[in-house]
Amino acid sequence: MSELKHYAIISADCHAGLPTEQYRPYLDSRYHQALDDFLAERQAMLAERAAAGQRHEEYEEEWNTQEGFAGGWDAHTRDKELDNDGVVGEIMFPDSDSISGTTSPPFGAGIGATGDLEADLAFAGAQAHNRWLAELCSESPLRRAGAALVPIVFDVDKAVQMIEEAKATGLRGGIIIPAMWNDYEPYHHPKYDPVWDACASLDMPVHVHSGPAPREDYLDNMGIYVSEVIWWAYRPLRFMLWGGVFERHPNLKFVVTESGAFWAPDMLWKMSDQYESIGGAAKIAKQLGAAIPRNPVEYFDRNCFLGASTMKRVEVGRRYAIGVDNLMWGNDFPHPEGTWPHTAEYLQNTFHDVPVDETAKILGEVAAEVYNFDLEALTPVTERIGPTPQDLGQDAEQNITKWARAKAAGRFWDTGADPAEAAAI
Amino acid sequence: MSELKHYAIISADCHAGLPTEQYRPYLDSRYHQALDDFLAERQAMLAERAAAGQRHEEYEEEWNTQEGFAGGWDAHTRDKELDNDGVVGEIMFPDSDSISGTTSPPFGAGIGATGDLEADLAFAGAQAHNRWLAELCSESPLRRAGAALVPIVFDVDKAVQMIEEAKATGLRGGIIIPAMWNDYEPYHHPKYDPVWDACASLDMPVHVHSGPAPREDYLDNMGIYVSEVIWWAYRPLRFMLWGGVFERHPNLKFVVTESGAFWAPDMLWKMSDQYESIGGAAKIAKQLGAAIPRNPVEYFDRNCFLGASTMKRVEVGRRYAIGVDNLMWGNDFPHPEGTWPHTAEYLQNTFHDVPVDETAKILGEVAAEVYNFDLEALTPVTERIGPTPQDLGQDAEQNITKWARAKAAGRFWDTGADPAEAAAI
Repeated sequence: MSELKHYAIISADCHAGLPTEQYRPYLDSRYHQALDDFLAERQAMLAERAAAGQRHEEYEEEWNTQEGFAGGWDAHTRDKELDNDGVVGEIMFPDSDSISGTTSPPFGAGIGATGDLEADLAFAGAQAHNRWLAELCSESPLRRAGAALVPIVFDVDKAVQMIEEAKATGLRGGIIIPAMWNDYEPYHHPKYDPVWDACASLDMPVHVHSGPAPREDYLDNMGIYVSEVIWWAYRPLRFMLWGGVFERHPNLKFVVTESGAFWAPDMLWKMSDQYESIGGAAKIAKQLGAAIPRNPVEYFDRNCFLGASTMKRVEVGRRYAIGVDNLMWGNDFPHPEGTWPHTAEYLQNTFHDVPVDETAKILGEVAAEVYNFDLEALTPVTERIGPTPQDLGQDAEQNITKWARAKAAGRFWDTGADPAEAAAI
Repeated sequence: MSELKHYAIISADCHAGLPTEQYRPYLDSRYHQALDDFLAERQAMLAERAAAGQRHEEYEEEWNTQEGFAGGWDAHTRDKELDNDGVVGEIMFPDSDSISGTTSPPFGAGIGATGDLEADLAFAGAQAHNRWLAELCSESPLRRAGAALVPIVFDVDKAVQMIEEAKATGLRGGIIIPAMWNDYEPYHHPKYDPVWDACASLDMPVHVHSGPAPREDYLDNMGIYVSEVIWWAYRPLRFMLWGGVFERHPNLKFVVTESGAFWAPDMLWKMSDQYESIGGAAKIAKQLGAAIPRNPVEYFDRNCFLGASTMKRVEVGRRYAIGVDNLMWGNDFPHPEGTWPHTAEYLQNTFHDVPVDETAKILGEVAAEVYNFDLEALTPVTERIGPTPQDLGQDAEQNITKWARAKAAGRFWDTGADPAEAAAI
């Protein structure tokens, strides 16, 4: 690894989406009237929120009038912006505008989709987005991996068909499923097995992406929403791990995107203790392992990945417990909560003391493996725009020494390291 | 603090409950028929679970035939067991048998109560338990603080009346509310203000206790249940912090019991960043602070407490970020997931390197303050049964030195400590 010259950065969390009305040509014509109704309703809702002081218009105006913002849907601008950000490859999720939501696929079928949508419209909106996204990917297939929207809760057969179509049209970024199933079956139910089969055999990673939450509980309180929302996104992970989905589908790749990674060590520690019937779990030991012959952490390591987007220093510190081979960075382009257009500065601040081989994995190699990027074919781009370890302020030798103890301690419940000392500075 | 001879241990999480059929004399007679029906139904359900291999009969048999187990309802046995465990005072929650559930208050009104119960029966079952519990407390009022069951979601006026009655009958342990409101209003809704008013003015701490969870989602998978259940217990904390409950009720005490404490630093860090509109929260800054003029962490420090029961080494390590003044230990007597009857050994393993003043707070002083225990009046008991720092294997000087750096780092988002280094060993 000492030979690494430029990091091949793959953003495991980018967004691409047309202004909603522009999805019309991609939408089956029998839904055009519904689109008009949807747009009119949304317009009224936005006006209402503005009147109630719930919109941050100045912020929105300032962000969305940047030249690069159109890279959310315009291929040429997109290339330029990602080049400037040093990003060689990307996985694309919908909803390029995360402030007003006016670039969402029709009918709420984007990252906010849940089991609460009308099935027919959810499929139609998703289909429109997938068609457009396949076009966007086809212009630069080496660098762009698009993830297809597939609302699996409503109809498994239709979902399988959609997955096959997505793959056939070049969407190798996998699929996005609703993070919340609402009144439908949870994701460890056997009804979804054909979906997981299709995704495993076509090598289409399955994603949940943060956004959905039971908003009706919040009574318009946004603090509660931002505090809970990532939990709702990664909730399906627990169901699938305990429910035996990865036992039944050993080749399935499951990715939790834009939901951080800081929570993973505690989740894994607890699951491992529970599975081994340590502590309170002993009294129900007979029931715990029913669906899985192995510790859930083994499935996590083999099948699960965290698209932790704009990772924080906390997450850098916990990388050995999370799993360096399961962790993927993303710039969240073009969302304001992402690092674009200041990725260079962010990488220095966050990765300056991380060993080079680990940085390479987190910034790109893990994603290359999960999404089948051809890093060799991308070498010219990498050499042109990829930052060097020196650009990140890294001192290869010092960085290895600094973390030797943390690396050896790893997951304390496996290594016997004292978790009290690990938890404190 | 160097003068401390014996720790005055108060268990912030003990359980007391009659075998359900013995609640009959405490239950209004118009519910006696309903009790018969409830018992018959539960018997059938237990038989069904046994037939399905979902019960762990040997474990249950072995645990529940211990002599001390009857301390769950028998005052004399209880005193003896707590003496042997070195516990001077206790806060009592229902459901002494956590394996079979056959010592729960009638009609599911115990720690598993949610907004899904029938309102009338929930109040009747709670009332029966509270009446019995007041008797149990009256035999040893210095050492026993009972928490009354009050299903506030169903009827606020009735709840307020019940809170006043509980206080009048000597239940100074506060109240337990359903951890899940289901289809009723969430706890930041103004409809509950009279409840919080009553609790604040009568100095009755409000508790949520782990147990409830949306089991219908799990399709009988117990792994998912044990993985999620504590999140459902502490979920109301977020609603109340963001929703302004502690702004409107500055003297209210809110306690999350038997739900650990390991998650608190991450929750507080995220809330603080969100409130200060750091990162992604900036785009909705206008909406975030709507209900609270102060950072939610300030309310947590002032109003909230974690009855973290059988704290783990992880939690010991994170005590400065959680807040040493907000953390309470408990032995969870007489549950098998607790430390009884091996508390002495557990305390050595877990607290051997903790400074004496912090140990004293976590094991008893914080609880004494929250629940108004008279530690001076309890001194003779403390001197008779309380362990010494030497019993815990503590070296006062060394223990202070060992944690000096962790203490200074405290909450990294306030102190500027590097969270990556804090997160790693």
